[in-house]
Amino acid sequence: MALGLSYNDFIACCGSKQFAKHMVAEGPFDTYDETAVAANNIWFNKVDVNGWLEAFAAHPQIGQNQPSSHKTSSATSAQWSKGEQSTALATATDSTLQELYEWNSRYREKFGFVFLICASGRTTPEILSELKRRFSNRPIVEFEIAAQEQMKITELRLQKLFSNIEVSASTQVQS
Amino acid sequence: MALGLSYNDFIACCGSKQFAKHMVAEGPFDTYDETAVAANNIWFNKVDVNGWLEAFAAHPQIGQNQPSSHKTSSATSAQWSKGEQSTALATATDSTLQELYEWNSRYREKFGFVFLICASGRTTPEILSELKRRFSNRPIVEFEIAAQEQMKITELRLQKLFSNIEVSASTQVQS
Repeated sequence: MALGLSYNDFIACCGSKQFAKHMVAEGPFDTYDETAVAANNIWFNKVDVNGWLEAFAAHPQIGQNQPSSHKTSSATSAQWSKGEQSTALATATDSTLQELYEWNSRYREKFGFVFLICASGRTTPEILSELKRRFSNRPIVEFEIAAQEQMKITELRLQKLFSNIEVSASTQVQS
Repeated sequence: MALGLSYNDFIACCGSKQFAKHMVAEGPFDTYDETAVAANNIWFNKVDVNGWLEAFAAHPQIGQNQPSSHKTSSATSAQWSKGEQSTALATATDSTLQELYEWNSRYREKFGFVFLICASGRTTPEILSELKRRFSNRPIVEFEIAAQEQMKITELRLQKLFSNIEVSASTQVQS
């Protein structure tokens, strides 16, 4: 069964307009796996570096709720960010949050974009340790790592879309 | 003897404001070699990806005279571009120039920035062949290659600045 995911669904998974347009053009997709293969191919081979920066800008800073750019961010994306950071928030103290805030600023100052990590299931100390480790990277190296983290987040979100659709479909069958 | 190269001198070599600011802060430099080491370190380790895009935008498309952004381009840079492309222009025909124009457009469409190559001493057929070969690269791979080409151009231009200063200094000694 081909699932009709929309441009807005894809933008909520990854805030690059190029990404969402390509996904719509290459769809519809029958399974999550098929969708994930297309998403990886599009993200790493077709979306240009401006599109990567656009997607990064749609994310809030870790530990905060506001994305650095509202242009391509969506309400769904903001809601998902909150959920993805729930372990981090549950394990944060005032002092680790303050440290995270300071390192986020240093990171953005050095690299020119927000620190991106697939936060799902990670504690604040783990995230902080990763931020400090990655901070010493060259800008181009860090740019590619951030893009890989973006893809992990995109995959998690595509999975959620598929789960929602399956739940909705099974509800329809039962009713 | 420490040479007083200015912010504008560095911007003419590489149109990234971050690059020029760092060069001024780390100078003055006594020799070309010292300058080139600092320039490489700053360009690859300190200038962020936005700075790379800014420098790329200060270049005209190969075969044309106008840079894609006038913001950081300088008259000196435009003059140097013309000189660097003199072999290419001398070996161009109407049809190779037309082909170059078309491939430049395809390149910019795919990668989101101008095709950058250290054109000095290269013929139009050579440049065209490189453009076609590089076109199949992934965006992130091509981004780093373009940055390496930018550094080659920067080094050539820094050499020119040093030659000019040496000529000027020897003229002063003689007079």
